Amino acid sequence: MRRSMVAARLAAALVCLSATAYAADAAQPASPGPAAPKAAIKTGPVAADVLAASSPADWRSPDPENLLYMDLAQGRVIIELAPAFAPAHVDNIRKLVREGWFDGLAVDRVQDNYVTQWGDADNTRTPKTAQTKLAPEFVVRGAAVAKLPFTPLPDRDTYAPEAGYSDSFPAARDAKGQQAWLIHCYGMVGVGRDMALDSGSGAELYAVIGQAPRHLDRNITVVGRVLRGMDILSSLPRGTAALGFYDKPEQRIPIAKVRLAADLPADQREKLMVLRTDTPTWAAYVEARRNRREDFFPAPAGHVDVCNIPLPIRMADASK
Amino acid sequence: MRRSMVAARLAAALVCLSATAYAADAAQPASPGPAAPKAAIKTGPVAADVLAASSPADWRSPDPENLLYMDLAQGRVIIELAPAFAPAHVDNIRKLVREGWFDGLAVDRVQDNYVTQWGDADNTRTPKTAQTKLAPEFVVRGAAVAKLPFTPLPDRDTYAPEAGYSDSFPAARDAKGQQAWLIHCYGMVGVGRDMALDSGSGAELYAVIGQAPRHLDRNITVVGRVLRGMDILSSLPRGTAALGFYDKPEQRIPIAKVRLAADLPADQREKLMVLRTDTPTWAAYVEARRNRREDFFPAPAGHVDVCNIPLPIRMADASK
Repeated sequence: MRRSMVAARLAAALVCLSATAYAADAAQPASPGPAAPKAAIKTGPVAADVLAASSPADWRSPDPENLLYMDLAQGRVIIELAPAFAPAHVDNIRKLVREGWFDGLAVDRVQDNYVTQWGDADNTRTPKTAQTKLAPEFVVRGAAVAKLPFTPLPDRDTYAPEAGYSDSFPAARDAKGQQAWLIHCYGMVGVGRDMALDSGSGAELYAVIGQAPRHLDRNITVVGRVLRGMDILSSLPRGTAALGFYDKPEQRIPIAKVRLAADLPADQREKLMVLRTDTPTWAAYVEARRNRREDFFPAPAGHVDVCNIPLPIRMADASK
Repeated sequence: MRRSMVAARLAAALVCLSATAYAADAAQPASPGPAAPKAAIKTGPVAADVLAASSPADWRSPDPENLLYMDLAQGRVIIELAPAFAPAHVDNIRKLVREGWFDGLAVDRVQDNYVTQWGDADNTRTPKTAQTKLAPEFVVRGAAVAKLPFTPLPDRDTYAPEAGYSDSFPAARDAKGQQAWLIHCYGMVGVGRDMALDSGSGAELYAVIGQAPRHLDRNITVVGRVLRGMDILSSLPRGTAALGFYDKPEQRIPIAKVRLAADLPADQREKLMVLRTDTPTWAAYVEARRNRREDFFPAPAGHVDVCNIPLPIRMADASK
């Protein structure tokens, strides 16, 4: 059956009357946060100043084993994978990439204000080294949670008890620190699946191209984030079939190839740096997004949502 | 000076050290909402069922005096204006449309995960009947607030004390009912301005094409919502100059014309219907979005954000 991330066309015929076998987590209570945000602070640096004043130690260079370069005719999309949250899926994606799975496949779905999705639309391929399905990694549980780096965002979140950042990935935790998961902010990349919870493998991936679909958190394996190329993925023509699939195969957007940065010679790797999310610079940057002090804003919000902080990326300066 | 909605290029050079003359509203406290959302309810209809079971009385036909048809080569964009929230700006926009202001202008800015913006990029025109600047209508105040229809969304909001819907527009109110404003959800349309708070007039407009930039709420006049055509506005090529402006004039997307539906013969008006937001059907629809019961979701969120509810639109069935 053709994979679809949200099988709404089936769903309309179903009414869920019984609990699923999967341990259904109760809806997460909202994070407590401050009872009322402090009045917006009008003095202090703007975000651009914070970044300009940052030092090299404030930035990190992603591990080349976690960087995908997806080349389309329109340009390159770079994705950083998050093995800490989805180790089996990330490992499987590396296998898929290394066996050339994605080469010659295509973007087959662009649903406005939702996702751009790519994979083997016509089910023509069988993986040689990779798995075809994996146990879901929707949520990190147990002892592994404490090992995840996590910088809370003090601002209240309404979908999760605690929201924040883990190695620059937007993430959430429950109140007791027993569960953690990645958040579906703009640009995050997840694993397409069918109704069966283990039907995802990484062979089909999607990126969020609109308002963060937070209802997908904890329901899908999230594997990473687009560092570059959202301008491409978000501007593709929307599919006119149901769920934004392209009606005709000739409308799909071909993928020339996908490579891991680690498999390229060092001089062919893009020298991307990502702002760390565990430093005083990061805290100052968040503050400057929470309270916009640029003269444009007579009424700074005094609050910022976990998906409303642009995650800075820059090219390394070879002269430094 | 060329209008820009967020004058970040100036802002980087400025540090705001003094309060602005405009009455700076304090940051709004988050809405209280339920202390912890009820456990997700697994029984009940899915959203598609609620809409299928709706009656004609659940839908409204927008006033043709509030409907703009913006025709691009790529197709038609339909915008519903919200005069209850921005009466002077909406009135001015009608004047601009009726004097042909927008005809032959262009989309000159597409900033990824932010806005698509259109207007008189080169300042070549002077309005004949419309104003060139207007007092800001960022917030409705005083006695007018009580006259606004408003259906609260019981779910907690973190940017406003109360969020909900007013005649199908996402809107917010303060705790005392003294202020109300439109929310910058995906597809909402606002008035481009410069630093000066009264520099907007409706001659330059933008639509939100990504994650709701809630920090703009109460800082810009919001005038309406795109009912059709976000697939066009969101898929335009991103501008490569600062703030997403197109670098070269030839990259701009021409606007053939903009017309008010009221000025067209009845048989040329699009028979759009918008789901009302003040009915039991609406409440059931919201519930079905808060708790996604489709079998796909093992972990329904039990919460929904004001910008995460798709606002249903359909064509009227002439046979009904």
